[in-house]
Amino acid sequence: MKTIGKIYLVGAGPGDPELLTVKAHRLIRQARVVLYDDLVSEAIVSLAGCQCEVVNVGKRCGAKRISQHEINARMIESARGGLSVVRLKSGDPGIFGRLAEEMDALDAAGIPYEVVPGITAGIAAAASLSVSLTDRRKSARVVIVTGHKAYAGQKPQKIDWKILAREDATLIVYMPGHEFSNLRAELLEAGLPGAVPAVVVSRATAQDQRHQYTTVGDLDSLPRLESPSILLMGWSLQGAGEKSRTIDYAELMLASE
Amino acid sequence: MKTIGKIYLVGAGPGDPELLTVKAHRLIRQARVVLYDDLVSEAIVSLAGCQCEVVNVGKRCGAKRISQHEINARMIESARGGLSVVRLKSGDPGIFGRLAEEMDALDAAGIPYEVVPGITAGIAAAASLSVSLTDRRKSARVVIVTGHKAYAGQKPQKIDWKILAREDATLIVYMPGHEFSNLRAELLEAGLPGAVPAVVVSRATAQDQRHQYTTVGDLDSLPRLESPSILLMGWSLQGAGEKSRTIDYAELMLASE
Repeated sequence: MKTIGKIYLVGAGPGDPELLTVKAHRLIRQARVVLYDDLVSEAIVSLAGCQCEVVNVGKRCGAKRISQHEINARMIESARGGLSVVRLKSGDPGIFGRLAEEMDALDAAGIPYEVVPGITAGIAAAASLSVSLTDRRKSARVVIVTGHKAYAGQKPQKIDWKILAREDATLIVYMPGHEFSNLRAELLEAGLPGAVPAVVVSRATAQDQRHQYTTVGDLDSLPRLESPSILLMGWSLQGAGEKSRTIDYAELMLASE
Repeated sequence: MKTIGKIYLVGAGPGDPELLTVKAHRLIRQARVVLYDDLVSEAIVSLAGCQCEVVNVGKRCGAKRISQHEINARMIESARGGLSVVRLKSGDPGIFGRLAEEMDALDAAGIPYEVVPGITAGIAAAASLSVSLTDRRKSARVVIVTGHKAYAGQKPQKIDWKILAREDATLIVYMPGHEFSNLRAELLEAGLPGAVPAVVVSRATAQDQRHQYTTVGDLDSLPRLESPSILLMGWSLQGAGEKSRTIDYAELMLASE
């Protein structure tokens, strides 16, 4: 018998620390090791206890570059040392989070783990817009894609918008980048009307969150927004930009909460 | 000036009370009125304070049938009475939760509201299976549909599986029903190989959660599972059924958590 730590692969949600799950909150506080990605906010990381080893293993923009192999090795080493580890990923770990690669490494090493879901950015962005992704009158489905290296099967593939761009879907593009001219052309060529509403949500649910409302036809005239951002398109977004204006909050005094 | 309550349209997550967000947990405890759907668990509803009016407004199976109009009227009445209201929906309110209809009623009545996202059942089901919905080697996108009255635009439409059923997608079907023979035939006719893995997750993340592993070709031989259930299909589910068997947990003593 040997004592081994368990790895929790945990979704940190979109940004607002209150959008952590109760379980994620508890696991972070109890962990002996927290390995977190760049996009996880300071407010969330700081929930870890004072005895906890807290390590930024982000690979995006930092000066130090930690490889996926090193992250895997670090998780396995900590678990073998008997420490419980929280591997903290922004949003939900199973949506564009390289979860599969990390689980494969843990499987190969015989380390027990558990995946704890989180609020993914697309769903948080819709909530922040007061939008139903499946408004029955406008959208029959939700399609989640990434603009970044769409499919790493054999080689990066282009997204086949002819198939996806339909009026009865809400499209959510993770990591859409900043250059939408090609996307606009492809969507219009695929037959999507230029009037279909589109919104870019930058830093969803963070205090400096921003929404940019446009249409598919005007996608190429968007200003550059701060990362991370997410692009939502579809008739279900119709009117989202006006909602906050329909209520004159100045007239109301909200009951104490 | 008048005092008016705010309505929080809150996702209760998939079932496990620990998969509530910290914000949902706080709002339920602080609310003066909680209006909840049938699928929200007793453990979650019981978080409400003792001064709180807690009402089951579920429309599914109960003897009493409350119409959408009555739910809307009740929310508006409570808010006008100065009470803060939590309208609690299972999963995420914006995914097949009739959120749009309720927001429209609140907009029309001039009642302020806020949407608080929740962990949607499909994402929770994937986590419970230790599956990445977007494993880059197997899946370029996630498509979320419902098997129940697919699209109430003009008339209920059939899902066009010819477009959706592609090998590089993970398909998630909410409310898939119990009869999969037609679905199987349509998927195979649409060109999806019979070997594509499929899993039905029943009561995801609840204590009596169950997983049934099969393939698209064998969908018609599944036993009937308890509601609510969710159907996931795609190569990203490959091996999900074996994962828990690759680690001999009996050999390990988990570190205290």
